[in-house]
Amino acid sequence: MQNEKTKTEALEDTGTIGSAEIVTIGTEMLLGDLVDTNSAWLSSRLASLGASLYRHTTVGDNRERIITALSEAASRADLVVTTGGLGPTSDDLTNECLAIAAGRKMVEYPEARRHVDEKFATFGRKPTPSNYKQALFPEGTRLIPNPLGTAMGALLELDGALVATLPGVPAEMKGMFEGTLAPLVRERSEGAIVSRTLHFTGIGESALAEKVQDFLDASDPTVAPLASQGKVRLRITTRAATLEEGEKKIAPAAEEILTRLGDYYFGADDETLEGAVGRILTERGETLSLAESCTGGLLAKRLTDGAGSSTYFKEGLVTYSNESKERLLGVPHDLLVEHGAVSEPVARAMAEGARKAAGTDYGLSVTGVAGPGGGTEQKPVGLVFVGISDEDGVVAERLDLSAWKHSREAVRERSANRAFDLLRHHMLGRDKT
Amino acid sequence: MQNEKTKTEALEDTGTIGSAEIVTIGTEMLLGDLVDTNSAWLSSRLASLGASLYRHTTVGDNRERIITALSEAASRADLVVTTGGLGPTSDDLTNECLAIAAGRKMVEYPEARRHVDEKFATFGRKPTPSNYKQALFPEGTRLIPNPLGTAMGALLELDGALVATLPGVPAEMKGMFEGTLAPLVRERSEGAIVSRTLHFTGIGESALAEKVQDFLDASDPTVAPLASQGKVRLRITTRAATLEEGEKKIAPAAEEILTRLGDYYFGADDETLEGAVGRILTERGETLSLAESCTGGLLAKRLTDGAGSSTYFKEGLVTYSNESKERLLGVPHDLLVEHGAVSEPVARAMAEGARKAAGTDYGLSVTGVAGPGGGTEQKPVGLVFVGISDEDGVVAERLDLSAWKHSREAVRERSANRAFDLLRHHMLGRDKT
Repeated sequence: MQNEKTKTEALEDTGTIGSAEIVTIGTEMLLGDLVDTNSAWLSSRLASLGASLYRHTTVGDNRERIITALSEAASRADLVVTTGGLGPTSDDLTNECLAIAAGRKMVEYPEARRHVDEKFATFGRKPTPSNYKQALFPEGTRLIPNPLGTAMGALLELDGALVATLPGVPAEMKGMFEGTLAPLVRERSEGAIVSRTLHFTGIGESALAEKVQDFLDASDPTVAPLASQGKVRLRITTRAATLEEGEKKIAPAAEEILTRLGDYYFGADDETLEGAVGRILTERGETLSLAESCTGGLLAKRLTDGAGSSTYFKEGLVTYSNESKERLLGVPHDLLVEHGAVSEPVARAMAEGARKAAGTDYGLSVTGVAGPGGGTEQKPVGLVFVGISDEDGVVAERLDLSAWKHSREAVRERSANRAFDLLRHHMLGRDKT
Repeated sequence: MQNEKTKTEALEDTGTIGSAEIVTIGTEMLLGDLVDTNSAWLSSRLASLGASLYRHTTVGDNRERIITALSEAASRADLVVTTGGLGPTSDDLTNECLAIAAGRKMVEYPEARRHVDEKFATFGRKPTPSNYKQALFPEGTRLIPNPLGTAMGALLELDGALVATLPGVPAEMKGMFEGTLAPLVRERSEGAIVSRTLHFTGIGESALAEKVQDFLDASDPTVAPLASQGKVRLRITTRAATLEEGEKKIAPAAEEILTRLGDYYFGADDETLEGAVGRILTERGETLSLAESCTGGLLAKRLTDGAGSSTYFKEGLVTYSNESKERLLGVPHDLLVEHGAVSEPVARAMAEGARKAAGTDYGLSVTGVAGPGGGTEQKPVGLVFVGISDEDGVVAERLDLSAWKHSREAVRERSANRAFDLLRHHMLGRDKT
């Protein structure tokens, strides 16, 4: 412990942080029991602080493989952030492996031991001997405080790189990153990576790409497309000395892209289709009700994912039976018998019924065959109708999602996306000025 | 193309598949724009087919880094599965990089060109010249059919390993894996990794771990816990020559664990809480309706995620306003004024109202403060009431989810989990024999 000060000082001397890698540690990820969400979160934060990410690596709770992964990452990047393997059990090996890779002894840190004691006291429990494993770190470590849990992290130099070990529990990992790593990276990185994401729908990825091919081929800012369930997003990214400078470099590209693709654009960055709908309704002081059949509550769930939706969303009727459609929405029995529940007339009646029952400005309905079973020759899986009702009348649109007939989730998500987008266009098309 | 046959035969000769690695390709993951869910799915499937996973690697859309990652993985593992980078745009580089790593030319495959044409025909669109990029593969490739999308995959030998390239779109990737890779791995792997997952709820992770510590410490089969949103699962895993032999090794452990923890057990493997509820309803020929406030359609969405729910799920009323609660559920106006929408009496009235309106055997209601805003001292964020109604009467339970007050999603998911579990216990507690 006596040379801790010297080593820490050496650590402080480490130079610029331009590049970073993430190593996530845990056999549960290699068995597919756990989806690694930490890497995405860390990547997004590191990029915005100016560090370029080149690689994510996941290895299991295996001494040799952890040491190899740490050493390889440290040989390539200025900063290596690990998550996982800081717990008290015998398969938690991260700090021990870091010590081996760096040629250091594991020593007990009194500050970390006190932290374990204090955390257990707040939980009203007593630590067992194994819990004090979390007080052992490679000699020369700078500790990373963990306000939420027992596991402190380590900051240590390895092969000229800085290695930071964080726990796998997302809330703890995030708190420790913001508290200790973010200020350090901000200080040592050169500039910032600035990006803006533009969201489009109603156009395929390749058709969209062709309209902005010159931007996709350009190197600064870079523009990259990503498609998902009927939506396409373009991410515009640049590196600059400051956030403001980066935004200035991005703005002209964004403007030109919107000039070409504005018809399909629905929002930037964290915006969602349902969020765009909610924003228009909020701006206009208007309200919405839903009538869902095949989407079974998905539209209502998505509208209420965000807080504050109660100002414009009044009610959602998940009418999964014909009897419900008649009683709650007033869909005529004869209409259901003649056309079937999956039909344009029923979609219209559902939207109208939802609007009138709730007394809202708009009613939005979805009825279809989500599959994988239940399709017929006349009404195959993927046939979906969307209805929109307002005081001026009711319109409906037929969707053919049969290309996704093998995925109930895809049919439902795409139905919801199309329904929100049709409503959005319908609202924007009405002259409300 | 003339030597395709020879190369394909060489490919067929590749030996045993004991180990596998996954390489996911896409700058969007390194920027944190996309969480990689494919690696977990592929890992789970590969493990169950007998291949041991040692590493996941993610790299961006960068020629040099993709080539390095492919070559490194091929030097370590018998099988390398990649996802992403098979699209038609200029930053889709996977097959090109595989060709460079393997020292092959890129050639057009007529079968793949026809596939692009056919897919575009079913979408009712015409391919642009860039779309035919998806017909180019390294010479000697065996094509992997893609029933859902335009991007076929490649199977090619590299440095003694077999490399399979799959698209990043999960539905396409999964279909191609099951259609082509799964039979191949099953045939060439030695034995199988067999696992069973037992799901529990109503007990914390550490309390559960203490009751089965001897199993968590054992090495064959291994037992590992994983907690998520109020549920804990235990995964029991072993390696064996055959599936049957593996199941015989797992059965005694599973039996003993269930003897100790049966009160908290709700299902195995892919079972969900809503699936367990649906199974009981189906077995008994009973029906359910929902009344949701703070969960906003989440329960209905989860119940209808699986096909076939229409036999027991009749309707869901997302009553996001007090007026809706009165009109649709018959909640007395005075009750709402006196107790507020988030209260035990209102939860009871909602459940009763839903059941009576729909004429179902059960009515299930949720009302609460999901946050992050909207909390008061009397009714803080995380206060939730669940109501259950049947012909014998109505019961309600108060949930305190204030520990998750910072996450609206956590409060909503945990509310749904508790509601389904309370209903499940309620149904099982009724004497229906």
